[in-house]
Amino acid sequence: MDIRDRHPNLAEWNDLIEGSLADPDSEPILNLDPDDPDPLYDAIFVGGGAGGRFGAAYMRAMGGRPLIIDAWPFLGGSCPHQACVPHHLFSEAAEELDRMRWFSDELFFPKFDASRASILELVRLFLAGRASAHAFMNWQTKEQLDVSYVLNARATLVDPRTVRAGGRTFRARNLVLGTGARPLTPDVPGLDLHGVYDFVSVVEELDYEPTRCVVIGGSKVAMEYGSFFHATGCDTTIVSRSPVMRSSSLHHVDEDLRAYVVGGMRERGMDILEGAEPVAVHGAAGSVRGVTVRLASGEEREIETDMVFLGLGERPETTEAQAVLGIDVGPTGRVVVDHHMRTTTPNVYAIGDLIGGPMEMFKARKSGVTAARNIMGEDLEFDFSEYPDFLHTTYEVSWVGLTEAEAREACDEVIVIQMPPYVEGLDTQHLPLPCAEGTMLYAFSRPRLSGFQKLVVDGTTRKVLGAHHCGYGAKDAFQYLDHLIHRPEGLTVDELGWMNELFLNPEHFVQLSRLRAGKSTLTHL
Amino acid sequence: MDIRDRHPNLAEWNDLIEGSLADPDSEPILNLDPDDPDPLYDAIFVGGGAGGRFGAAYMRAMGGRPLIIDAWPFLGGSCPHQACVPHHLFSEAAEELDRMRWFSDELFFPKFDASRASILELVRLFLAGRASAHAFMNWQTKEQLDVSYVLNARATLVDPRTVRAGGRTFRARNLVLGTGARPLTPDVPGLDLHGVYDFVSVVEELDYEPTRCVVIGGSKVAMEYGSFFHATGCDTTIVSRSPVMRSSSLHHVDEDLRAYVVGGMRERGMDILEGAEPVAVHGAAGSVRGVTVRLASGEEREIETDMVFLGLGERPETTEAQAVLGIDVGPTGRVVVDHHMRTTTPNVYAIGDLIGGPMEMFKARKSGVTAARNIMGEDLEFDFSEYPDFLHTTYEVSWVGLTEAEAREACDEVIVIQMPPYVEGLDTQHLPLPCAEGTMLYAFSRPRLSGFQKLVVDGTTRKVLGAHHCGYGAKDAFQYLDHLIHRPEGLTVDELGWMNELFLNPEHFVQLSRLRAGKSTLTHL
Repeated sequence: MDIRDRHPNLAEWNDLIEGSLADPDSEPILNLDPDDPDPLYDAIFVGGGAGGRFGAAYMRAMGGRPLIIDAWPFLGGSCPHQACVPHHLFSEAAEELDRMRWFSDELFFPKFDASRASILELVRLFLAGRASAHAFMNWQTKEQLDVSYVLNARATLVDPRTVRAGGRTFRARNLVLGTGARPLTPDVPGLDLHGVYDFVSVVEELDYEPTRCVVIGGSKVAMEYGSFFHATGCDTTIVSRSPVMRSSSLHHVDEDLRAYVVGGMRERGMDILEGAEPVAVHGAAGSVRGVTVRLASGEEREIETDMVFLGLGERPETTEAQAVLGIDVGPTGRVVVDHHMRTTTPNVYAIGDLIGGPMEMFKARKSGVTAARNIMGEDLEFDFSEYPDFLHTTYEVSWVGLTEAEAREACDEVIVIQMPPYVEGLDTQHLPLPCAEGTMLYAFSRPRLSGFQKLVVDGTTRKVLGAHHCGYGAKDAFQYLDHLIHRPEGLTVDELGWMNELFLNPEHFVQLSRLRAGKSTLTHL
Repeated sequence: MDIRDRHPNLAEWNDLIEGSLADPDSEPILNLDPDDPDPLYDAIFVGGGAGGRFGAAYMRAMGGRPLIIDAWPFLGGSCPHQACVPHHLFSEAAEELDRMRWFSDELFFPKFDASRASILELVRLFLAGRASAHAFMNWQTKEQLDVSYVLNARATLVDPRTVRAGGRTFRARNLVLGTGARPLTPDVPGLDLHGVYDFVSVVEELDYEPTRCVVIGGSKVAMEYGSFFHATGCDTTIVSRSPVMRSSSLHHVDEDLRAYVVGGMRERGMDILEGAEPVAVHGAAGSVRGVTVRLASGEEREIETDMVFLGLGERPETTEAQAVLGIDVGPTGRVVVDHHMRTTTPNVYAIGDLIGGPMEMFKARKSGVTAARNIMGEDLEFDFSEYPDFLHTTYEVSWVGLTEAEAREACDEVIVIQMPPYVEGLDTQHLPLPCAEGTMLYAFSRPRLSGFQKLVVDGTTRKVLGAHHCGYGAKDAFQYLDHLIHRPEGLTVDELGWMNELFLNPEHFVQLSRLRAGKSTLTHL
């Protein structure tokens, strides 16, 4: 279907996408220049997810000539279809359900009715609405970003300059591979039973309401989905080989932050088994009935459950790219690239979840942009070894820079500024600090639930080394804190303390810093 | 009561403060150096609110010798007692009630029961907990900040170097006046009736559950408290001489932002009468029963109500300071100071809500710090003519820098990057963008409620001129955006677009900028 001269509005795009998704025989969607039927593109972006879409848009903005090819009938990739967007919807529901439980039959909150809370219903809410974001991205990429694309057509790699899709052949000076990753599956018997899901299949395939869940894994996805399931009233057990929030995929997790976050999950009744691993998933009549887990002690435990959720990370699928293009792949399955996003094969770049580093949006998009800018003649390196990070439980948890322990390794003098305050022995259990948007109701009735925040400072240079927050409303700020503390001159407590706070602000770093900024020798607060 | 050698914990402080507030004959609380009974302080801070406490703490940190005197038995001033803290608690309740109404009997939300929502109950929740923040500030100021103070003792000004309080005389090289402001009362008959409140008396005196409310005023306090009352089910009418959100006390309010925010209030059923003013408040049996309002048309309307809320701004009480110290006061009642916070009387400074500019926390605290640093020998100017700002309805609304209209006045070429996108005629009414923490549930069921955001950019210099947001979770970020866009070198779209977003972030400025950063000639998005 050639839509170059059509300009579907959002509702029309929505219908076109829904229709294409529902019909396996639906035809490719072509947004190509009819006046130039066989152009040599500057780059073909194989995969129009976050990295491909942003990379292609940047290249086009620079005057270059990109083409995106994607197997799905929409741009944006897995994020709005199966990953970040449903996760955020579910996490917001978890936050809300959590509040409604704590305040059950108090104030304006009615008695909490767990029978109303349904994982399946929230999945269906997501499914009914997800194409609207797809529609917007297809519309925007065509009408505002002026990028050519072929959607609903799987790309077949021919050589480093040639790709086939939708029965046509496309040629380019470069290829940019951005086909993403898929959830990992552990080597445990019973995973073929009905009732075993990962973050993709839980959205695509869930067809009943689980009452108990065993989550395998201890990193972000496991914590986030586990917290959501548990908040709906689905009793959740997390089975994690490493301590949760301390896997190798998460860097800079401060121990006090971790203790607050994981303690909060346990306080809400989640069973968290660390140092444990699944031995087998058992079923009856084709469906999950239980999991055998080997505990840290070596003892085995049977856990009854009607759902198993795999939250073990992801791995890219690179077989075709390796075979056809000869690109190198590292030991964990990620495509090897340099700081320009160049693979080991000339004129072939790789971006997003295909390459190493965090499988996060900033890296996906900026790696796409980096590839585009280098193809267009810039000499630009993208180093994603340092970045801000976050996860959700029933809270929003954000962090950037060094932990207190890392700072003590790196500096002579480390100063900590935090809430509740950095003192021993004070009766802070009823102290409603921190409090801010999102934790005010907690602050006035269950102060211990109102969050935690910590700023880590080099006592000698006075520079902020790290910031750590559990609560709500600070995530956006951490984007800018990351920029400020990682810029060459850094950010001192004195500069931070002279900023204009918007009180009550979710993190109190500006004003707390001001209370110490006057001291020539900094001390804890 | 001399507590210098006592170290009350938070619970003990709480009891001491509650006891002092309850007993009009309670004695002063003295935290003074017993070894130096008659010192010459560097400054006496008359008023230990935000400005006095931060100023004194900074002075002490610099090695100076401050004394705080306050009539209340706690430090922190009106903010945690009657102003910002209850306001934020009420605004959070309003956000939550709003969500529970929209989702009544949908998903996990039960049928909304307006009879459970009570202004009085939330006021009582606040009253029961407010001393815990007071306790913390008294504890922190003594134990962590090492500042001397006399509390629960009204200061009497003697001369620019002498103050009496609690039966003792204190001397200093300088005075720093920080006694704050009190809500304004309009010249309308009937305000002595039971049922007329301002933000102070609604906390201190409310003793029944209002069912209808007329709010007089159109600026922050009126919008915030009006939105809260209305969210509880108390039908609210706002009577404002100027268009709401467009009073002279609010600068840089973008018209599109205003339209979204005020439209949202109206959509929720609030009656907003602009160009209108109250003529008289009527009562029966000593209590409010109605308000006569003169409408913009000149016509008079009777509004039945059992509550009137005055949200008209505040004015400092300066009679004593003018009479004793001879300081000058400007036409609006604010103490005249220079950029050093010096009044027209030598060695007398004024800070916080006593002086001009916004009655906001950043100005209060930083003006206190400015006075302290100048007294300690620095030459420091504090210019608060530019600052980020915010207010609450059932949303959190944040803004900084120029509006689109202001930018068009100032620049040749203005570029707007916003969500929903800056285009005419697109069917965006079902577009769930922006969406982020706090608006995900709306995004998937009532997309038009998911917020608004706009970035205003100089198309020539590529610098960000202003940012405007309605939603949740962006307020904290605006502290840093303010710093970045107002620093001498400013912030370009290109720098912003190279930051590391934490996706889904409440404001999408980083990634939206990135979609345009590649273009040598910027265009709207």
